[in-house]
Amino acid sequence: MTDWANPGIDLHLDLGAGRGVRTRLEQALRQAVRDGRLAPGTQLPSSRVLAQDLGIARNTVREVYDQLVAEGWLTARQGSGTRVARETFAEPSRSKAAPVVSTTAELTESSHGQNYPYDLRPGSPDLSSFPRHVWLTASRRALAAAPHEAFGYTDPRGQLDLRESLAEYLARVRGVRTTPDLILVCSGFVQAIGLLGRALYKIGGRQIAVEAPGLPDPPTILRNAGLETVQLSLDADGACVDQLADEDAVLLTPSHQFPTGAAMPPARRTAAVAWASKHGAVIVEDDYDGEFRYDRQPVGAIQGLAPHHVAYAGTTSKSLAPGLRLGWLVLPPHLLEPVVCEKHLADRHCPALDQLTLAELITSGGYDRHVRHMRARYRRRRDQLVTALVQHAPHVRVSGIAAGLHAVLELPADGPTEDELVTRAQQQGLALTGMASFGSRTGPALVVGYGRPPEHAFAGALERLCAVLETTGL
Amino acid sequence: MTDWANPGIDLHLDLGAGRGVRTRLEQALRQAVRDGRLAPGTQLPSSRVLAQDLGIARNTVREVYDQLVAEGWLTARQGSGTRVARETFAEPSRSKAAPVVSTTAELTESSHGQNYPYDLRPGSPDLSSFPRHVWLTASRRALAAAPHEAFGYTDPRGQLDLRESLAEYLARVRGVRTTPDLILVCSGFVQAIGLLGRALYKIGGRQIAVEAPGLPDPPTILRNAGLETVQLSLDADGACVDQLADEDAVLLTPSHQFPTGAAMPPARRTAAVAWASKHGAVIVEDDYDGEFRYDRQPVGAIQGLAPHHVAYAGTTSKSLAPGLRLGWLVLPPHLLEPVVCEKHLADRHCPALDQLTLAELITSGGYDRHVRHMRARYRRRRDQLVTALVQHAPHVRVSGIAAGLHAVLELPADGPTEDELVTRAQQQGLALTGMASFGSRTGPALVVGYGRPPEHAFAGALERLCAVLETTGL
Repeated sequence: MTDWANPGIDLHLDLGAGRGVRTRLEQALRQAVRDGRLAPGTQLPSSRVLAQDLGIARNTVREVYDQLVAEGWLTARQGSGTRVARETFAEPSRSKAAPVVSTTAELTESSHGQNYPYDLRPGSPDLSSFPRHVWLTASRRALAAAPHEAFGYTDPRGQLDLRESLAEYLARVRGVRTTPDLILVCSGFVQAIGLLGRALYKIGGRQIAVEAPGLPDPPTILRNAGLETVQLSLDADGACVDQLADEDAVLLTPSHQFPTGAAMPPARRTAAVAWASKHGAVIVEDDYDGEFRYDRQPVGAIQGLAPHHVAYAGTTSKSLAPGLRLGWLVLPPHLLEPVVCEKHLADRHCPALDQLTLAELITSGGYDRHVRHMRARYRRRRDQLVTALVQHAPHVRVSGIAAGLHAVLELPADGPTEDELVTRAQQQGLALTGMASFGSRTGPALVVGYGRPPEHAFAGALERLCAVLETTGL
Repeated sequence: MTDWANPGIDLHLDLGAGRGVRTRLEQALRQAVRDGRLAPGTQLPSSRVLAQDLGIARNTVREVYDQLVAEGWLTARQGSGTRVARETFAEPSRSKAAPVVSTTAELTESSHGQNYPYDLRPGSPDLSSFPRHVWLTASRRALAAAPHEAFGYTDPRGQLDLRESLAEYLARVRGVRTTPDLILVCSGFVQAIGLLGRALYKIGGRQIAVEAPGLPDPPTILRNAGLETVQLSLDADGACVDQLADEDAVLLTPSHQFPTGAAMPPARRTAAVAWASKHGAVIVEDDYDGEFRYDRQPVGAIQGLAPHHVAYAGTTSKSLAPGLRLGWLVLPPHLLEPVVCEKHLADRHCPALDQLTLAELITSGGYDRHVRHMRARYRRRRDQLVTALVQHAPHVRVSGIAAGLHAVLELPADGPTEDELVTRAQQQGLALTGMASFGSRTGPALVVGYGRPPEHAFAGALERLCAVLETTGL
């Protein structure tokens, strides 16, 4: 069976520094599986190909594969190659029959690497803070006011009420310049990037530049849409846009680079826009946590500089909850039809009720209030994190803290590896993620998602983090 | 710009019988645009290609294209070919800026051919019957009971609560045999068929048979996924499954064929399963209105005969409302992983709250009560339709009335054409759909969606329908 998710079986591994190459490869593969970067069932490159890619001996790769098969991380079957084991961290299934395949259960992020009592992995807000009562009240108002037609097959762009509220909100809060007819309501960023990818491909696009390090999923989705992804380096100011050449598009996280947290300064934004304009290319702006800026005036969206060259993606996944699957694309005019037609083919349009509820929430001011409230709470956590690190692990450099729900902790190069720290943390019941998960080739670092824990568990999570970091001190 | 939705620009036209070929071609094209089968902006084949396909003179096609351009149905631009006009039936846009492209607004089914005071087109239930209060109550309970994790990134198959409720419900009501781990919650049938199509392609499938006549969208979506569609004829018992050869899959509507309404008898179901089993092929069962059977014991799903060879698709689009975008796939084990992985790539999983609400509704018995209530209402309408036809248009043969939300009205072959009847109805403020919209090559017929009108408008719709039909009598 072909590995239909990754036809070229790209496998990025950061082997780090120190020790023997065999040990480093083992650790890198274990980490990649633990973090979920390599999902259960994923086919790995053959030992010959991986050895070539990494520039190491084929026997070394074979021995590592054998070792990890023996440990249960991988499986090897005649004619099927070496794959990530399916039963690695299976949660006990609640279904009455034995599941035929447990792989799908393991696609959930929460089940990757087991559930831990304390969790500082990035990627999620505090789920306990989803404002259920406020949402239900808005839902009741929305249901009372909605015309019957709202529950039929409607505009693929989404409910007009929501698009009008969003146009106003985004202009006010993020400096986005658009009109309701250019907004497409999507089922989160994953759908948005998939629709964009397919639309770009269909109008002739073939290459998109993606930040590296960065989230692994968007490039996978873009490649699945037929595009080739080209890596774009980062520095302290975010993506190195001067490296852009003749790609058809670039995917950026300019307000708060994921994972480094860098904010792209004005001159670089202007340069990105100039490049897009000159080449007729598209900037895809992933504004995943744009409402959470702590220390100064929010950095407006790049979209406001060039509405005809930027596809702006926003989401409620961090401000409300990932489970809503409610996001949006603000499209440049030339992409409206191709992208909206992909949406129509994909699932017609997004569900009506949640859209009407969000529109009501925005219009009533309830959404602003909630975001302000959460911004204050996440800022407090950011402060507590910084203070704790100063006290307990002054050798650790923290960055990316001006915004968002995560920060980067740079570790001493000669201390424990990311892998070792993550393991130590797990032994204390704390889940952590290393920077290598996102393709980083720089020194060891942790990406700490201080937004994730429920309020009552935050202090405990911070305690355990500091305990682990203290062991890295000189 | 390439026509990325239809790379081979397939254009199915039923030229019908009678009159001159030029008139028939004009009518067929106008009807196709009016019904929405040819969406605004769609590129038509060149006159040379269309003439070849239809076996008529090229000059005839040119003259027809010219005439329809003059009438405003089509546009012709140098280098862009002949296309369906974008402004054909545009609803006035509510957005403050002039829309850059009005095409996307016209993708909504309700705006196709304008909104009419009375609407008997198939494809929608009575939207005014969506049980808002019951839904809100279930939503409140669901919100009160949901654990925080339910609002995070969860299982791509959907909320377990809903999958458990569905497994039980489908077994009881449709004879479906499955377990919760083999159910995938989807954003309606459109998404389901797209995910299935891509999954089938990725595991090596290349051809899928589709009923003709049938809905035009699923074949478009399947072709978009890379599959080739092969037409499968129908007779009074539904799809002619003995014609199946070495296709990798077949898409059936066995309980109530759309649009003819035929119910597939047991012997033919068994034959379909035998074919699938022998060839290792997949039956995709679209059970779009399976809960609405009026005259006898419900016909169970084919899935119950062969859970390992059938992918069963169900939906709330007819039982609750299309705007919910809430459907499901019951998968054969070998398709679980490929299809679920496509879902994960497409949009991670469906939104949490509506799933939990539906689960609560099913568990509390509220869903069963609503379906029973609507079944009784739609049965009453079916009876009223049949009675009215017997009285006012006895020359019209009605079929497909044992189930569902639509019936087929066969018209005398020597009377007005479908096109003429639809136009006459429009003049009376009534929207109708002819069978030709679905690819039928048999005599003139109407597909009447008696489920669509709100209760208060049904009598008026029926009145106007009878008035139009009376003009067809001998």
